[in-house]
Amino acid sequence: MKKKLLVCAVQQPCGDDSRQVNLDYSIQKIREAATQNADLVVLPELHLGKYFCQTEHHSVFDLAQAIPGETTAILSALAKELKVVIVSTIFERRAAGLYHNTAVVFDKDGSIAGKYRKMHIPDDPAFYEKYYFTPGDLGFTPIETSIGKLGVLICWDQWYPEAARLMALAGADVLIYPTAIGWDRDDTCEEQAKQLEAWITVQRGHAVANGLPVISCNRIGFETAPDSESGIEFWGNSFIAGPQGEFLAHANASDSQILMAEIDKTHAETVRRIWPFLRDRRIDAFSDLTKRFID
Amino acid sequence: MKKKLLVCAVQQPCGDDSRQVNLDYSIQKIREAATQNADLVVLPELHLGKYFCQTEHHSVFDLAQAIPGETTAILSALAKELKVVIVSTIFERRAAGLYHNTAVVFDKDGSIAGKYRKMHIPDDPAFYEKYYFTPGDLGFTPIETSIGKLGVLICWDQWYPEAARLMALAGADVLIYPTAIGWDRDDTCEEQAKQLEAWITVQRGHAVANGLPVISCNRIGFETAPDSESGIEFWGNSFIAGPQGEFLAHANASDSQILMAEIDKTHAETVRRIWPFLRDRRIDAFSDLTKRFID
Repeated sequence: MKKKLLVCAVQQPCGDDSRQVNLDYSIQKIREAATQNADLVVLPELHLGKYFCQTEHHSVFDLAQAIPGETTAILSALAKELKVVIVSTIFERRAAGLYHNTAVVFDKDGSIAGKYRKMHIPDDPAFYEKYYFTPGDLGFTPIETSIGKLGVLICWDQWYPEAARLMALAGADVLIYPTAIGWDRDDTCEEQAKQLEAWITVQRGHAVANGLPVISCNRIGFETAPDSESGIEFWGNSFIAGPQGEFLAHANASDSQILMAEIDKTHAETVRRIWPFLRDRRIDAFSDLTKRFID
Repeated sequence: MKKKLLVCAVQQPCGDDSRQVNLDYSIQKIREAATQNADLVVLPELHLGKYFCQTEHHSVFDLAQAIPGETTAILSALAKELKVVIVSTIFERRAAGLYHNTAVVFDKDGSIAGKYRKMHIPDDPAFYEKYYFTPGDLGFTPIETSIGKLGVLICWDQWYPEAARLMALAGADVLIYPTAIGWDRDDTCEEQAKQLEAWITVQRGHAVANGLPVISCNRIGFETAPDSESGIEFWGNSFIAGPQGEFLAHANASDSQILMAEIDKTHAETVRRIWPFLRDRRIDAFSDLTKRFID
């Protein structure tokens, strides 16, 4: 297994009304990354279309698809052709009335190496995900691939140190966060800056606490809610950080960008020797972490 | 109970050979903070003297003292006189052969509100703490005071999201980290910068993940190891962050400084409504957090 990996986050808009247009855009970027010898390409959360959770409508469930299905067939073929590992997030139809927000990992041979169903589901004004997505039931399990164990999580998971830690304890070589997060334009610039910085900080914190690189891949662009002028300004700022939380690559808030960095799996081992956090965890005193609150 | 608190971190040198000199310095700073109406003053970890864990010597245990004891009597009287809450960290002699690194919280009436025994004990070249300190056995329990519940942790704890989370789940209003951390001068400037940034980032990450303010109080100055020219350059950079991880105050690497900020307990509630992380924790899937590793 390679020790040094060239990893890539495709920061892109996903707001075209045509699924095909959004997918073709992703495919073009994956091809570009592959010509630069990327081992791994991460796409933003639910990159096939507009972020549809700004409102609740029955008809939206028509967008869901089976895994494996139409989109996975296309990305499987692409992964095999380009010999690149791809992380895509798809609105999964598992059964009638049962849907998930699911990341699929395609290995270099085109096989589906595994999937991760988003465990933490948000619900906020304009992010009505609890309506659409059943919470994942596959746990926090890294996905074994030809390039290493991928600790794939999705968006809201990024705020939870528990999720990152469980991936690390299960042997993940890297934490990966496809995401769709943005600003409410009604917020002040100061509040917007605080939110963005908090989002970056907490994920870099997971890198530090676990001695693991982190890849966070967000979309860009303003998307209005149906029948409304309000919407979400997706804030980009995709980044790749090393196992001390240091930036290896960092995109801005508005540009379509192929973000690349080399991560060295042996470096994480060195960092964990300098700061041997895993050695000293007080697991004898952690049982209350499974409580909702201690009261 | 007051909603707005004026909190303070005393960044100071602690390297004088005389315990009295170091303590008098702390007392002077506490008096200055009190004249500015501070509600809470946090001192650096083990502020009574040099960081003695750079080597292992039997005789060092002579520095330990009982709690309550000589130092707590002085700080109790001071807290009562100034009507200020004080957080001090003391090398505790609990019994013959049984010692802890212990934070003591003095309430405004001079009483000992509670203590916290450092749970995560490091052991690295020049930080031989496992030799001196028995791991704490009081758990991660916030200390109830007249100004709120203080989530007091110590130094190495700061790298552990579990510790911060358990304090938050137990109702802490603020996370407090007295600390003694610094650079090895043999490291490159780049490596030193990375370490400092990682230390800040992971603690700001705890603020974000838990929607809580954080007070981190470090010492300054270079302290040589006994019989050696090598030593630790304590990196200061004490800071106070709000519940989105935003800096409210931030000291530099070398100056003695009284760092002050107002924290508003109602603001944390607002932040937790915007980002209701506690609502969505997948406690049904967290049981493996009590494992050393998942293999």
